[in-house]
Amino acid sequence: MTPPSDKALVPFVSVENMMRLVNAMGAETVLRELASYIEADFKRWPEFDKTPRVASHSTDGVIELMPTADAENYGFKYVNGHPKNMKEGYQTVTAFGVLSSVANGYPILLSEMTVLTALRTAATSALVAKYLAPKGAKTMAMIGNGAQCEFQALAFKAICGITTVRLYDIDPAATAKAARNLAGTGLTVVACKTGEEAIEGAEVITTCTADKQYATILTDNMVGAGVHINAIGGDCPGKTELHRDILLRSDIFVEYPPQTRIEGEIQALDADHPVTELWQVMRGQAEGRRDPRQITLFDSVGFAIEDFSALRYIAEKVKGTEFFDMLDMLADPDDPRDLFGMLQRAG
Amino acid sequence: MTPPSDKALVPFVSVENMMRLVNAMGAETVLRELASYIEADFKRWPEFDKTPRVASHSTDGVIELMPTADAENYGFKYVNGHPKNMKEGYQTVTAFGVLSSVANGYPILLSEMTVLTALRTAATSALVAKYLAPKGAKTMAMIGNGAQCEFQALAFKAICGITTVRLYDIDPAATAKAARNLAGTGLTVVACKTGEEAIEGAEVITTCTADKQYATILTDNMVGAGVHINAIGGDCPGKTELHRDILLRSDIFVEYPPQTRIEGEIQALDADHPVTELWQVMRGQAEGRRDPRQITLFDSVGFAIEDFSALRYIAEKVKGTEFFDMLDMLADPDDPRDLFGMLQRAG
Repeated sequence: MTPPSDKALVPFVSVENMMRLVNAMGAETVLRELASYIEADFKRWPEFDKTPRVASHSTDGVIELMPTADAENYGFKYVNGHPKNMKEGYQTVTAFGVLSSVANGYPILLSEMTVLTALRTAATSALVAKYLAPKGAKTMAMIGNGAQCEFQALAFKAICGITTVRLYDIDPAATAKAARNLAGTGLTVVACKTGEEAIEGAEVITTCTADKQYATILTDNMVGAGVHINAIGGDCPGKTELHRDILLRSDIFVEYPPQTRIEGEIQALDADHPVTELWQVMRGQAEGRRDPRQITLFDSVGFAIEDFSALRYIAEKVKGTEFFDMLDMLADPDDPRDLFGMLQRAG
Repeated sequence: MTPPSDKALVPFVSVENMMRLVNAMGAETVLRELASYIEADFKRWPEFDKTPRVASHSTDGVIELMPTADAENYGFKYVNGHPKNMKEGYQTVTAFGVLSSVANGYPILLSEMTVLTALRTAATSALVAKYLAPKGAKTMAMIGNGAQCEFQALAFKAICGITTVRLYDIDPAATAKAARNLAGTGLTVVACKTGEEAIEGAEVITTCTADKQYATILTDNMVGAGVHINAIGGDCPGKTELHRDILLRSDIFVEYPPQTRIEGEIQALDADHPVTELWQVMRGQAEGRRDPRQITLFDSVGFAIEDFSALRYIAEKVKGTEFFDMLDMLADPDDPRDLFGMLQRAG
């Protein structure tokens, strides 16, 4: 059988190649550059075709498709969320994604996105904090020390100048794992025994837990004035992390309101509770932090444009490298109308 | 670097392997078996999570995601439709799809679906005709002799006992291509110079053209009593093939009304125009053909469950064969919470 033509082949970035790429560039560089791609795309927000993700919920979790497009490219991510997976030796979240040409519909990149989602989520959080965190913030509390924890810590170091992270998890083994991984990154790491201890002196509080239930990771009395809350874990219906009273004291910033109202912390609030869209802050069309004593809250759920930016970034970065394989994913008959003839002649 | 664990790997069926599988089994066998998988899934229709496909339209075409799930598996297809591609040497339609486990969200198959969609579309048409075509139908007119044409012809031979196909296309080269490919399949093939000539004596009329515009491939006076119309090409907003008067004289059968009313021939009719759902016909809960003089119309747009059936079928068939590769698509750290550690240690 003759090898397929170039038109049939799609560059594929495996998990191994993604890790090789990130390690070759350095994780902090990747986080910084990713953040700049995401920022650029947020600043041209109105150019995108946007839709809330398409979620298929089951008893144990959710499988989602997150598509978006601009005039040139179409991108989507497949991602699952299964909190119980961890106990069975599987990832809570795995993902892959595709970037395509809008002009002809052909995929131009297939990439693993488990590692890439961890990177883009952290890059987005730190990018948002650049606009919202108190000026000169140096200390971040990290409540929840699972798979996302170290990525957040490193992104806040690289992008916001955070120097100290204070870790807490209901499972001390998770805290120990994160502390071990962050040793040698240049961050001061403090393992804490309670959530209250973790937030002592922190200007930024990141909550990043995974239970699919209405949990209260932060209670109202834990949160003082002048902090920025980076709430990552509340990201599907029925899953929140913050006490409602904290929300009422905060100015709330979101990615895409139609999705966040269903999935984010603000599902606990009225449907018309005021929120600010981050793309407007980044364009200077809405106010970010206006007061050192204000509580700002990024109600993060993750939006398709962030994945689009990440795929766009990886497609650029792997060019001219060895960090991808070519997959025979698309049929390419000599005559486009002769698909059957191609099948026949292969026989 | 150590090779990834089994949990990180997803079986991938390339275009080459799909063709090898189909040729090893024989296309007619595949079409028959595919039809039986599709029929089984249509008969348990209420068990599926259903949603109209998520379409991203642009000037030149459309990119769609088509997800569905039962209690055990989740499946989706990525598919584009770009009529102008053909002139530039690209396929009008390319596709790939994924089947996953609902229990943990992990993909269990990634497959090319350009060839597979051609097969499942033809298998669905012939399956539907088994319920709706006039008894003893032997002759099919095929208007539009593009990439889907020969698959339709072979499926109607294998599943419905069609012995003669009468081909017509506005481009005689397309007709010649189809006639050439169908020589030796056992079908009697008649190349025709007009649509009118093609439908002479045909009990089944298949329309399968690709222009994205309100076209009228069949006018009212061309269609007599006692035929079954298999309308494949009208499958997105603004794209239809049949004159409205034909629709008014026909009993109309559809896959999934919420999707067909947007995309199918019936977009030309009132939103409450009566249609019959095929799954109900297959379950014996609604009537199929009741009268030899009746005109039945399958307003085919293609529904996610057909792709789900096709992926389920391929996942079964490649087991124990050489017709797949293993892709390192999912991250699998030793400890699911230690994604960052995995990245670090790979460096």
